[in-house]
Amino acid sequence: MKIVLDAMGGDYAPDSIVKGALRALDELEDIEIILVGNENRIRGLFDNLPDRITIYHASQVVNMEDSPTASVRSKKDSSINVAVNLVKNKQADALITAGHTGAAVCSTTLNLGLLPGIDRPGIATVLPTLKGYSLLIDAGANIDPRPSHLLQYAIMGEVYSKYVLKKQQVKVGLLNIGEEESKGTDFLKSSHKLLSSSNLDFVGNLEGADVFSGICDVIICDGFVGNITLKVLEGFANSIAILIKKYLNKNLVSKLGGLLARNAFKNLYKEINPAEYGGALLLGVKGICIISHGSSKTKAIKNAIRVASESIKHDINKHILEELKLES
Amino acid sequence: MKIVLDAMGGDYAPDSIVKGALRALDELEDIEIILVGNENRIRGLFDNLPDRITIYHASQVVNMEDSPTASVRSKKDSSINVAVNLVKNKQADALITAGHTGAAVCSTTLNLGLLPGIDRPGIATVLPTLKGYSLLIDAGANIDPRPSHLLQYAIMGEVYSKYVLKKQQVKVGLLNIGEEESKGTDFLKSSHKLLSSSNLDFVGNLEGADVFSGICDVIICDGFVGNITLKVLEGFANSIAILIKKYLNKNLVSKLGGLLARNAFKNLYKEINPAEYGGALLLGVKGICIISHGSSKTKAIKNAIRVASESIKHDINKHILEELKLES
Repeated sequence: MKIVLDAMGGDYAPDSIVKGALRALDELEDIEIILVGNENRIRGLFDNLPDRITIYHASQVVNMEDSPTASVRSKKDSSINVAVNLVKNKQADALITAGHTGAAVCSTTLNLGLLPGIDRPGIATVLPTLKGYSLLIDAGANIDPRPSHLLQYAIMGEVYSKYVLKKQQVKVGLLNIGEEESKGTDFLKSSHKLLSSSNLDFVGNLEGADVFSGICDVIICDGFVGNITLKVLEGFANSIAILIKKYLNKNLVSKLGGLLARNAFKNLYKEINPAEYGGALLLGVKGICIISHGSSKTKAIKNAIRVASESIKHDINKHILEELKLES
Repeated sequence: MKIVLDAMGGDYAPDSIVKGALRALDELEDIEIILVGNENRIRGLFDNLPDRITIYHASQVVNMEDSPTASVRSKKDSSINVAVNLVKNKQADALITAGHTGAAVCSTTLNLGLLPGIDRPGIATVLPTLKGYSLLIDAGANIDPRPSHLLQYAIMGEVYSKYVLKKQQVKVGLLNIGEEESKGTDFLKSSHKLLSSSNLDFVGNLEGADVFSGICDVIICDGFVGNITLKVLEGFANSIAILIKKYLNKNLVSKLGGLLARNAFKNLYKEINPAEYGGALLLGVKGICIISHGSSKTKAIKNAIRVASESIKHDINKHILEELKLES
């Protein structure tokens, strides 16, 4: 398996991207890595890379200020474009980027194309819950979708849950402001109707308070609401560490308690932060593309590589195509 | 000050509503309470109510399945309608309901009317943050607003923060999926423009991860996104208790640590749960209306009564009208 990494994308690129790649090579025996980016800069930081890593030079980088669509055309030699084209030309099996999400969505959509039956790609993110993991889709690829896009997300999310997350029964819920099917905007009412008439195990509307409780395996929403939900959870997870410390330090007894329970807290912080999971899958494109958090460090990149290798192994797009045929 | 309570609204009505009223009377000397609802049922539960509580009979109750607009007309004698009319007829200074939010919004809008310059009411909720409190508006009154509605929410939120929450400088932020002003839907881009050209201290877009960090005093969003954000935070806050326990119980040392730090955790849970704050203000209507969480128990109702008494004292609507004049 060859996995290509956008070595220039993300807050800690290229340093953490390369370190993540090195860590992944230790853990996963059956992969090779292609780093795409400024070759001199990468070699300057890491002068002795193992044989299983190759560098593919790209002269440009998409910045956070760049327009997603324009950047695909104006920066043809950007690290993300070059990485996508390596997948397109079958020189790699999957790509990972922690750079500009919009640019990654545009570049993959335009260069790789969409699976037949899919009108828009969606970002599927694994969320920690009280009962394990749920999948939220869309986390930000499509902020103004139609109901039919949400149905496509639900089908792709179900397939991912079945084949990669190994869930036998996949319950699908629609994120809304109330449980009754009359709740929400016209867009949500139409989406509810469409999901109800599908072959999916659709359990109806789901409220914000249920996201973390894990009552659904797949949570469907538009990309705007999905992005806010995900980031609210991440912000809260990051804040909890600060708050717990603050409360424990209020007196000596609780401070001692905090010291004894130190490891428990460390493990807790890891479990509740969605950013720890390393990579969200961009579902719907002809190829495997992992969108990592901009703030990804070594471990998150290593996890993203693991997600990529699992998606390749389970041939996720083949199963999506089969499922789409059953639904149509 | 006379505060009217919808005694039939909420998951624990009328029991917790009446208990909350009794608790508030102990703490607040300058208030009287009117309970609106089924008199026999209330007297059956509490046979000896103090003089400062009166009961006003209402023969109907709005159920969660009722349509908000239809219920205002078809159930004229519902507890929420009767409570609103007591405010309209100056027999009370403020009203509180933990019942059907949509029905409360409709009944107050139709019966009390809106402040001149306000096109739609918005629910303003106090959120706990790392730096104290922020105000989120709208938390669910208006799920399909126009940019001008968001500007009105921002003005009302600023006034509330200044006069009730006693903040000297009020920073206003727009909840969006990125910091750049080019981010989000057309609705958000227009809202950003409108807020930028106002007299408010508008700091621009705010991401989901910043909600809990407290970098803004007033967080503006549409009612759909606001409701999801609030409920996601509540759900997470409720889950944290379960998760912390789970991790502490993994070995004896951390279990002991947890016992020592028990009080610290209790205080933490209280601080981080938005549901603890008792009442959100429905801003924009001609009158003072507090929307409480459906799951409100005694303490939340007591807190809602405190919020109502403070809003009456600070004459919030007078200040909103002054501020609207300055902006226009």
